[in-house]
Amino acid sequence: MAYTSVQKIRFDDVDGAGIVYYPRYFHLCHAAFEDFFDAAAPFSYPELISKKRLGFPTVHIEADFKAPLSYGDTAIVTLAVKKIGTSSVTAQYEIRRKRDSALCFTAEITTVMMSLDTQKALPLSDELKAVFSNYL
Amino acid sequence: MAYTSVQKIRFDDVDGAGIVYYPRYFHLCHAAFEDFFDAAAPFSYPELISKKRLGFPTVHIEADFKAPLSYGDTAIVTLAVKKIGTSSVTAQYEIRRKRDSALCFTAEITTVMMSLDTQKALPLSDELKAVFSNYL
Amino acid sequence: MAYTSVQKIRFDDVDGAGIVYYPRYFHLCHAAFEDFFDAAAPFSYPELISKKRLGFPTVHIEADFKAPLSYGDTAIVTLAVKKIGTSSVTAQYEIRRKRDSALCFTAEITTVMMSLDTQKALPLSDELKAVFSNYL
Amino acid sequence: MAYTSVQKIRFDDVDGAGIVYYPRYFHLCHAAFEDFFDAAAPFSYPELISKKRLGFPTVHIEADFKAPLSYGDTAIVTLAVKKIGTSSVTAQYEIRRKRDSALCFTAEITTVMMSLDTQKALPLSDELKAVFSNYL
Repeated sequence: MAYTSVQKIRFDDVDGAGIVYYPRYFHLCHAAFEDFFDAAAPFSYPELISKKRLGFPTVHIEADFKAPLSYGDTAIVTLAVKKIGTSSVTAQYEIRRKRDSALCFTAEITTVMMSLDTQKALPLSDELKAVFSNYL
Repeated sequence: MAYTSVQKIRFDDVDGAGIVYYPRYFHLCHAAFEDFFDAAAPFSYPELISKKRLGFPTVHIEADFKAPLSYGDTAIVTLAVKKIGTSSVTAQYEIRRKRDSALCFTAEITTVMMSLDTQKALPLSDELKAVFSNYL
Repeated sequence: MAYTSVQKIRFDDVDGAGIVYYPRYFHLCHAAFEDFFDAAAPFSYPELISKKRLGFPTVHIEADFKAPLSYGDTAIVTLAVKKIGTSSVTAQYEIRRKRDSALCFTAEITTVMMSLDTQKALPLSDELKAVFSNYL
Repeated sequence: MAYTSVQKIRFDDVDGAGIVYYPRYFHLCHAAFEDFFDAAAPFSYPELISKKRLGFPTVHIEADFKAPLSYGDTAIVTLAVKKIGTSSVTAQYEIRRKRDSALCFTAEITTVMMSLDTQKALPLSDELKAVFSNYL
């Protein structure tokens, strides 16, 4: 099962060449990750940060850019969980343009659950493993 | 006396109309405010935040946009202090394009010194008053 | 009548003091302006830009920041038209936090309709005047 | 030979967890790529875009995040050319924190030279090959 987040490309998302600035693709992925928590977890990502003092910093990325997004486009971002480790989660992202369904971007992004206070990796709780397992 | 900060317009500073996105002008002003601390104060703005737990949130802005900045431009941002209150500082900003010295933007931005912990305004220390007074 | 756009505060909207970076308030306003076109005009703002080669660059701002927005907040942005000139439109924006309805920000933002090709102001068409008049 | 660009971490570069938002690392890399053109090429990157109507969109990324950058840090970004293809250039980036020289980020980023008008890949000119060869 994949989770889908739909996001408008905004006026400031483009670069000097008139297409979406490539770092913004990772922003679209992070926004989808936040939306995923709202939809699939018993707490929001902001609550994970502020109340549990946990976060999922990114440790590794492999990404391919296949077609540009432009101002006026709507991005369809899908997130599927590829691998759940002791502390890590690897998610597979795809971004498509709504207007023609063209695949614009794919990425595998590995994150590690970390204590914001100690900056150390922590094992995923059973609750979080269950959240991610639903989207394997 | 005015403080001057020189900043390259970057690839992502433009909008879908091909000119610098107007909220970015305020970012250029904030970057100049940070550079001003590096140049004129006994501590950096990050140190003010992290060590003294103080900040200068913006409370009021009046701004005029007079000419566009484009990708490839260099912005000359000048900051002069217009008014020092008990807790507040009003700064006058001007942004010019380096290529032709055209005045692109003017703003008066009022900030209030605040405790990050209590979220209350605090009176400016004599040390900070002296820093700002040099640029009246 | 006012137009309302609801926007999540995202992970990157905050600054080094842990609250929403003040230039981002103007980004929230611009996003609301874009959403307003989608809801109220016969063409989207991206279409105005790319097909009609027209834009509404900002020329004047007066803004007050009244309370902070934080990560996890949802911003309720309302836009009402205050004045319609020959080429200009002045909009009144308010941003409230969803969690407690606190008024965080008010601004009057004046824009001028401009040809992207000639960079000259153009008189508003009757069609656009009607769009804005509905939100006076 | 590697090219080095030094960049201050700004007030808006951090995320809700208080460290630099991970997509910003790619922004630091792009800023270094622009600075590299200023230092090493007979034309700036903005001139390549606006006068030659050429660009270097990113097609592939592999990246590792090793240590966080924080507000107040200065990023030392190095760029070395790893591979020059017919139309493509693969660059190796490293980002270190100035305060302790810790390696924060490494990435290989492959870009393809493209006509902005036709959106097709074009072979690198001898002039550009020479520019990149100096940093192999």
